[in-house]
Amino acid sequence: MPYESKPSSPRHAVRLALAAVGAAALLAVTPARAQEPVQPIAPHKVTNPAKVDLGKKLWFDPRLSRSGFISCNSCHNLSMGGSDNLKTSIGDKWQKGPINSPTVLNSSLNVAQFWDGRAKDLKEQAGGPIANPGEMAFTHDLAVDMLRSIPQYQAEFKKVFGNDKLDIDQVTNAIAAFEETLVTPNARFDKWLKGDKKAITAQELRGYELFKGSGCVACHNGPNLGGTSFQKMGLVEPYKTDNPAEGRSAVTGNDAERFNFKVPTLRNVELTYPYFHDGAADTLAEAVDTMGRIQLGRKFSDKENADIVAFLKSLTGDQPRITMPILPPSSDKTKRPQPFE
Amino acid sequence: MPYESKPSSPRHAVRLALAAVGAAALLAVTPARAQEPVQPIAPHKVTNPAKVDLGKKLWFDPRLSRSGFISCNSCHNLSMGGSDNLKTSIGDKWQKGPINSPTVLNSSLNVAQFWDGRAKDLKEQAGGPIANPGEMAFTHDLAVDMLRSIPQYQAEFKKVFGNDKLDIDQVTNAIAAFEETLVTPNARFDKWLKGDKKAITAQELRGYELFKGSGCVACHNGPNLGGTSFQKMGLVEPYKTDNPAEGRSAVTGNDAERFNFKVPTLRNVELTYPYFHDGAADTLAEAVDTMGRIQLGRKFSDKENADIVAFLKSLTGDQPRITMPILPPSSDKTKRPQPFE
Repeated sequence: MPYESKPSSPRHAVRLALAAVGAAALLAVTPARAQEPVQPIAPHKVTNPAKVDLGKKLWFDPRLSRSGFISCNSCHNLSMGGSDNLKTSIGDKWQKGPINSPTVLNSSLNVAQFWDGRAKDLKEQAGGPIANPGEMAFTHDLAVDMLRSIPQYQAEFKKVFGNDKLDIDQVTNAIAAFEETLVTPNARFDKWLKGDKKAITAQELRGYELFKGSGCVACHNGPNLGGTSFQKMGLVEPYKTDNPAEGRSAVTGNDAERFNFKVPTLRNVELTYPYFHDGAADTLAEAVDTMGRIQLGRKFSDKENADIVAFLKSLTGDQPRITMPILPPSSDKTKRPQPFE
Repeated sequence: MPYESKPSSPRHAVRLALAAVGAAALLAVTPARAQEPVQPIAPHKVTNPAKVDLGKKLWFDPRLSRSGFISCNSCHNLSMGGSDNLKTSIGDKWQKGPINSPTVLNSSLNVAQFWDGRAKDLKEQAGGPIANPGEMAFTHDLAVDMLRSIPQYQAEFKKVFGNDKLDIDQVTNAIAAFEETLVTPNARFDKWLKGDKKAITAQELRGYELFKGSGCVACHNGPNLGGTSFQKMGLVEPYKTDNPAEGRSAVTGNDAERFNFKVPTLRNVELTYPYFHDGAADTLAEAVDTMGRIQLGRKFSDKENADIVAFLKSLTGDQPRITMPILPPSSDKTKRPQPFE
């Protein structure tokens, strides 16, 4: 257990946040929906279908990796809540990833990308894994060379962007356009937020009220129930992990932000196990228990825990309905991947 | 170059086969379609949609592998002609596969499965990779344990099979039912076979006539242009490879069948590069050239080669339109994969 966060502001931050965000909600048993600290997810409107379609091809194309085997979808699998359901991901040559793969679903709603927020948006994020030696292990130049060698890709990029550049900027632009479509509206909880009182059960409602009343909502708020701030992992009680990630401080250089991570979304959380930046919590019950203790200084009873877990499962929305793209075949000029060299 | 096949029956087999299969076709410039040695692919009619739907989930579920990372689709990618476009596949812990992954498309039309035909049908095949230590590296028992731990899978198996068994037999049965849907009708060449004279170009027709006239069709015949027989790789001239696979003899114990491999389908061959059991030929031009030399004792001119390649590209049919399944989430009881242990 070489890594441990030190609590720095016991309960103070939570209380402040609660006061700011949750106060009104705490009072009401059947709250006015407009005052809720959580808002429904809005469906995405596609404005440039050709760009989204190109982005979808790139999303599924393992030729953007050195091995020809790993695509965006390998670690953000759209059959599995946009995640890989592994503690940390498997990269090129079976390298062990440093951190749990966050879901791509609703990621356009996040204030920044990656657990430490080092990418300001989806476009900036998309370039990361392609060139990360531990992930897809390619280079932007080689990825672009591959795409340029394929006439059908050349034609599609030209159609979408109106020129013959076909550069990494266009590649990440198209991937981001596809990712922006990956929102999950119509969760039962959203229906409840919109006024359908029968959309969630009494237990789920109790769970939501406890979620608000005990302070979870201080960080997990907004339409994405998270993704809007960085918070210290281990606010009240140290978080013990063997994962060396230091979070926000690695980006800002500010030691006060050590172990600060982007608050993950709770949307579709039933599908995105295991939990936390280190993937250490296998189940929602475990995650809720740990969060209660280390972030809120509160030990939830089994019943309370079950109520919150029930609420969390009401956050599973309509999963994107994805028709697999047919990828344009490599041409005779396309360099063949050599995954074992 | 430690492995080399020895030619055993120079041109004799080819001549015999030609006489049997291609004779009528050789005579006709605009042949009567009914006499062609190649037949159109028929669309698949789904008789049990619930079973196909379950099979599709299993096809895409990486939890059938030890790592939780490799699914059937990893090596038979339906975005890439049902293949992985690698010389040999990547298995558990990045192990190098022994042989090129054959396409799953139209595989229900094959006389047997695997390059050496060791599985008699798709159902028998489907159990192989799950338990192969070099591929998905799981066991049938652990795969079944995983599925039984998930209530939604339990319910789906019960609905499809009418009992609570949920065993490997049902698993492979469902996967095979999904695979049977993966046929690719409506290739331009099939339209030509059905009488649409404009469906292929003059060059493609020249290629087809040469394909028949030079003997390719002796092995690559029927609706799948292959898949119906085992043939020696290196019939006329030795095939040189560093791949140790011995083919059919490893199954039958009959040394006379050394280097006999199942004749691969040529359907969608534009999408299923690289070619041969060892994946040694990167391009269709290379594959056609090699086949001409080692199987037919014929050196195709550049023009002849280009004509045959053009014909082969007319064999790309409608690719299956696959909506990605949403996989049922693991339950708290589901054993978590440990891919790095």
